[in-house]
Amino acid sequence: MKLLASFAFASVVASMSVPAMAQFQKPEDAIKYRKAALSVMGAHFGRIGAMANGKAPFDAKLAAENAAIVETLSKLPFTAFGPGTDLGETRARPEIWTESAKFKKAAENMQAAVADLNVAAKTGSLDAVKTAFGAAGKSCKACHDAYRED
Amino acid sequence: MKLLASFAFASVVASMSVPAMAQFQKPEDAIKYRKAALSVMGAHFGRIGAMANGKAPFDAKLAAENAAIVETLSKLPFTAFGPGTDLGETRARPEIWTESAKFKKAAENMQAAVADLNVAAKTGSLDAVKTAFGAAGKSCKACHDAYRED
Repeated sequence: MKLLASFAFASVVASMSVPAMAQFQKPEDAIKYRKAALSVMGAHFGRIGAMANGKAPFDAKLAAENAAIVETLSKLPFTAFGPGTDLGETRARPEIWTESAKFKKAAENMQAAVADLNVAAKTGSLDAVKTAFGAAGKSCKACHDAYRED
Repeated sequence: MKLLASFAFASVVASMSVPAMAQFQKPEDAIKYRKAALSVMGAHFGRIGAMANGKAPFDAKLAAENAAIVETLSKLPFTAFGPGTDLGETRARPEIWTESAKFKKAAENMQAAVADLNVAAKTGSLDAVKTAFGAAGKSCKACHDAYRED
């Protein structure tokens, strides 16, 4: 059953945005990679958040630079949830592999929201950044609530 | 003396490519960030290496995608070697802070080599990728040999 779920997940993953990049020697390499990519993404997302939430002065150029990095990074982690990467140093919940289509949709929602944030940041409007940041933050939270252990 | 070196380093860092992004709440956040960014960069660099070294079939599109990611990531880690980030979960050698101008130059060498690799990958030529990958690999090694504990 678990093997079946793994195969189903593998075929879902294979249809995702950067499929052929999913090359890891060992499951722990994939786990380390996805955690690192999400961590760097989170750092840059947080810098936009500081501006959106008035904790840092708004700098349109900086917001745009960070949003571009976030969008690039948003495409990376989901190549690294392949079969066998459910165990080890990870907070990934089993539902990632048992509800793989739902997980894929959640990842795509985030990628779309982050692409919107990048477009918004390029306008130089703080209001546009605030709105898009809020939507993107919700997409992060939705996936974390459903698929990441506390 | 150490404090002086830290200030000198801070002013060198402040002149680097993405200066205002250097925003970390705590030194350990900076350490985690730079390790994550270097780790993701290494994963994508390794995928180009597999093609350059004949361990994976050459796919020009994939090489170009990976090289673009490597170039984006190459700009990130060096904002995170600020004062106070020399201790903790890090293999960074003290020379990073005592020879900050040399460290900056080593980082810039890598960034230039990786930018060249991105240009090479866009040509679709395996030979061009091999040459540029070799040069970029040397720039990684030079910095690791000098500034990273084994």
